[in-house]
Amino acid sequence: MKASQLFFPTLREVPSEAEIISHQLLLRAGFMRKTSAGVYTYLPMALRVLKKIENIVREEMDKAGGQEILMPIIQPQEIWEKSGRWSLYGNEMFRLKDRHDRGFALGPTHEEIITTLVDGEVHSYRDLPLLLYQIQNKYRDEIRPRFGLMRGREFIMKDLYSFDLDEAGLDVSYKKMYKAYKAIYDRLGLDYRVVEADSGAIGGNESHEFMVLAESGESVIVYCQKCDYAANVEKAECGLEKQEPPVNNQQEMIKISTPGQRTIQDLVDFTGRPASEQIKTLMYVADGELVAVILRGDRELNEIKLKNVLQCQDLFMADEMTVREKCQAGFGSLGPVGLNVPIYADLETERLQNFTCGANEDDYHFTNVNLGRDFVPEIIADLRNAEAGDICPVCGEPLYTIRGIEVGHIFKLGTKYSDALDATYRDQNGQDQAIVMGCYGIGISRTLAAAVEQKNDADGIIWPLAIAPYQVIIIPVNNKKDDQVEAANYLYKELLNQGVEVILDDRDERAGVKFKDADLIGIPLRITIGPKSLQENKAEVKKRWDEEILLVEMDHVVQHVLDTIKNV
Amino acid sequence: MKASQLFFPTLREVPSEAEIISHQLLLRAGFMRKTSAGVYTYLPMALRVLKKIENIVREEMDKAGGQEILMPIIQPQEIWEKSGRWSLYGNEMFRLKDRHDRGFALGPTHEEIITTLVDGEVHSYRDLPLLLYQIQNKYRDEIRPRFGLMRGREFIMKDLYSFDLDEAGLDVSYKKMYKAYKAIYDRLGLDYRVVEADSGAIGGNESHEFMVLAESGESVIVYCQKCDYAANVEKAECGLEKQEPPVNNQQEMIKISTPGQRTIQDLVDFTGRPASEQIKTLMYVADGELVAVILRGDRELNEIKLKNVLQCQDLFMADEMTVREKCQAGFGSLGPVGLNVPIYADLETERLQNFTCGANEDDYHFTNVNLGRDFVPEIIADLRNAEAGDICPVCGEPLYTIRGIEVGHIFKLGTKYSDALDATYRDQNGQDQAIVMGCYGIGISRTLAAAVEQKNDADGIIWPLAIAPYQVIIIPVNNKKDDQVEAANYLYKELLNQGVEVILDDRDERAGVKFKDADLIGIPLRITIGPKSLQENKAEVKKRWDEEILLVEMDHVVQHVLDTIKNV
Repeated sequence: MKASQLFFPTLREVPSEAEIISHQLLLRAGFMRKTSAGVYTYLPMALRVLKKIENIVREEMDKAGGQEILMPIIQPQEIWEKSGRWSLYGNEMFRLKDRHDRGFALGPTHEEIITTLVDGEVHSYRDLPLLLYQIQNKYRDEIRPRFGLMRGREFIMKDLYSFDLDEAGLDVSYKKMYKAYKAIYDRLGLDYRVVEADSGAIGGNESHEFMVLAESGESVIVYCQKCDYAANVEKAECGLEKQEPPVNNQQEMIKISTPGQRTIQDLVDFTGRPASEQIKTLMYVADGELVAVILRGDRELNEIKLKNVLQCQDLFMADEMTVREKCQAGFGSLGPVGLNVPIYADLETERLQNFTCGANEDDYHFTNVNLGRDFVPEIIADLRNAEAGDICPVCGEPLYTIRGIEVGHIFKLGTKYSDALDATYRDQNGQDQAIVMGCYGIGISRTLAAAVEQKNDADGIIWPLAIAPYQVIIIPVNNKKDDQVEAANYLYKELLNQGVEVILDDRDERAGVKFKDADLIGIPLRITIGPKSLQENKAEVKKRWDEEILLVEMDHVVQHVLDTIKNV
Repeated sequence: MKASQLFFPTLREVPSEAEIISHQLLLRAGFMRKTSAGVYTYLPMALRVLKKIENIVREEMDKAGGQEILMPIIQPQEIWEKSGRWSLYGNEMFRLKDRHDRGFALGPTHEEIITTLVDGEVHSYRDLPLLLYQIQNKYRDEIRPRFGLMRGREFIMKDLYSFDLDEAGLDVSYKKMYKAYKAIYDRLGLDYRVVEADSGAIGGNESHEFMVLAESGESVIVYCQKCDYAANVEKAECGLEKQEPPVNNQQEMIKISTPGQRTIQDLVDFTGRPASEQIKTLMYVADGELVAVILRGDRELNEIKLKNVLQCQDLFMADEMTVREKCQAGFGSLGPVGLNVPIYADLETERLQNFTCGANEDDYHFTNVNLGRDFVPEIIADLRNAEAGDICPVCGEPLYTIRGIEVGHIFKLGTKYSDALDATYRDQNGQDQAIVMGCYGIGISRTLAAAVEQKNDADGIIWPLAIAPYQVIIIPVNNKKDDQVEAANYLYKELLNQGVEVILDDRDERAGVKFKDADLIGIPLRITIGPKSLQENKAEVKKRWDEEILLVEMDHVVQHVLDTIKNV
């Protein structure tokens, strides 16, 4: 493609709306434009990347036995009501009515549609297993769409659904997908990590996420350098260190006056004891009921673990008015002693002796509090976020943390949707059985953004060769010099003939502008035709991720490029 | 692909909901399933056909200089208001609101989005021409979705938009697209015709439709066998025959009692004079005003021509109550003489002498009425549908009619949208100029259905090779016979190695079932491995559109298949 014909409107300024680097670069490099909050038009360069990602995904899905279909975006309200998710989904689902006042959703996911489809077509155990997938727009009405393609309202997903006879069949399908996903991210050329994940609202009992590593990632991964353990911090188990529980040294509980001391830091300063010897008490409303959660002052609550322990649908922090009415004290003076709401205690709190906590009376705290003696929690469970330095639940070594972007997620669903939508097959004994399902998603547009988030430098994007919009860009330094133009045209045609995807920058721009654009849009290989090298009948070849400039004989350039593409 | 693994749930019964053959066959052959009225899931076989159509379209668009992008389906209300089409589009547009109560449309077309995009990125005459296209779902909330993919509510379109400096540039872009469209339908292997078309609500001043010929087609094409003229009946001009106007023989107008005579046929029987000597008077409401239309009793009104002549936005037939109130007579007794509403007369009525028409008094008619003498119309214009036997407006020979399915439509838009959305470029003199636009659509999913509508027989679909889901199906007659299975497997692997798309029917079904399915799903080439031919080391090769069965030496089958694919 000649650059003069190619629609890639680059920008010199960093758009003010863009907070993260992928968002900035995709706008600046002319890959996309916003049409409304969280909704984008993909320009030609971005679409080429998307198609390459899609093709790699498609090939691996097909190889794993998946069959591609295409389901509707507009999905009838009835089947969402049948599964119970019409009301559960809340404001995140775009809804509309047709001219006959029938309700529809813009599909955020397709379990309802595909389970209904499969129910109609699968009758016998002979029809299973079945792996069906699609690549298609999905919709989520985010409160605050942001970060460009990372958290959009219209985005492209691959979603595969597996249908099996039983849990053993599901295991096989799940492993196939796990393997296929690894093959995909290997081929995409991205640094990634597979982590154990929480299954969330979608249900099910085993789940892994595929994380592209990037400092700006929204997800925190805890992992072990000794063994293979890696998990989303939302899921990662916090074990207790192997050291023995402390020797009993319980002292008498004392009520102390703590005027104006509300935060853990206040109390650290006031009492002179570290945050790890304080207790913080958080108040939540779980399905309408007020509950208290206690954990060490230096720890973070993990709401997903709490939700799983509470087995509730709806969970949010209580407001101070509600709390004060029930507990007669405000935030900052709450504590488990004498509290008249159920207490959920993090595991670690059991190990603490003589800790400090609120006295449920404004401006008073207790010290030397001890669990069991001074109060009894409803449940003691793992409720906090894992942190670097925690011990690996598998091998006991210290854990590390790293940030990542969730680009893929695989789930075992079991019979959640087949039960709700009555999808059964007849087994060999003539008995009806629920179909056992799994679902497997990849964010296609998010993977594009994640690639940019991981692969960039101060000058722009650095596309991995497998998904670069073009593999090569040829820049004649001076477009007015016939010999340069001729040499550039020669290489352009030869490379095209070899099936290489190449841009010839034939624009009447200064060389500096062309180099800047080439770096910004991130083409992996740059061939420069300049006066000096041309005199020696050579071209300059440079890799986008490398500072080195190779001088290559004109006759060898094509082969050099082909070899580089092959070997990367 | 092995048939045992392939998801193509065929049906023996014709689904009662399906009125036309493509709808019936696509359901029966397991190509698609309905999820709600006018909304379908494409199963693996259909998706393969769609992808092939898309690829042919994409290749020709790229060849013509088009650049592929991907625009959003959810489009903000503001830009539709800016173009004036938010209200104009009426009930056919799906609308929704997001959680912040902002309005969106599900895009029925993308002029607003792309004009806004181009306005933001195109600044100079040097940036034009620009041809951008996408392949993407479109939405139309049909009152009565029907005919399967022919008139769906969610469907797949290719839409290209051209942006040029001036009308001359638009001519060039338009011709490129015209040529590309012909290349596409040639490659698809369908019988089609290019016809002149009305530009309709989308605006503009030149327009062609690409029609796949089929008896069930909703569109009527009039065409000339002598010259190249062909037009949609909605658009086709009706010339007057070259014969001289009749000699003046006007007789005295007479009022006659016609009790109970209301239709043209009634009057033919009652007066003994043919329908071509009667006048029918139709009453319409155009933008709120009552108007009368008169044309020969044997002709059909063309509402599109009428709308164009009236230059109105809104046109519908008046109800009898409205008419009676204004004209003091009911339908069947109306006529132009003494009528107190504006009269729009079809061209032909000027040639008539001494005709019969209603007297604007129930149960009375006039005879020997003459235009000019007895009444004066507001406008005399071409207002009727062309018919077989009319004269060609180009060469004067008689016209023929044939039915077709509109699958492509190209328009010159001019500056309609660039004016509304203020999309300009700066010309060489530093002056701002409106960008001149064209738009060019192809119904991808509709083309799939049109192909089936045109290519089928009593046994099923007959896919053209270029878009068949698979090119070859291999059927071992008896799956229990090792030698047949072995020979079938051998051919299967050899063909796959040659890049042929092949199904091996390895199912444990009777041969009859396999043959029936192969015919139903319409695979172009069938290779049968039967006991008799196998004894001679031969296979039977049959084309789906041909009764002949060829016996081909086993060693020659692959080459025979490759040759057939190449030559068709």
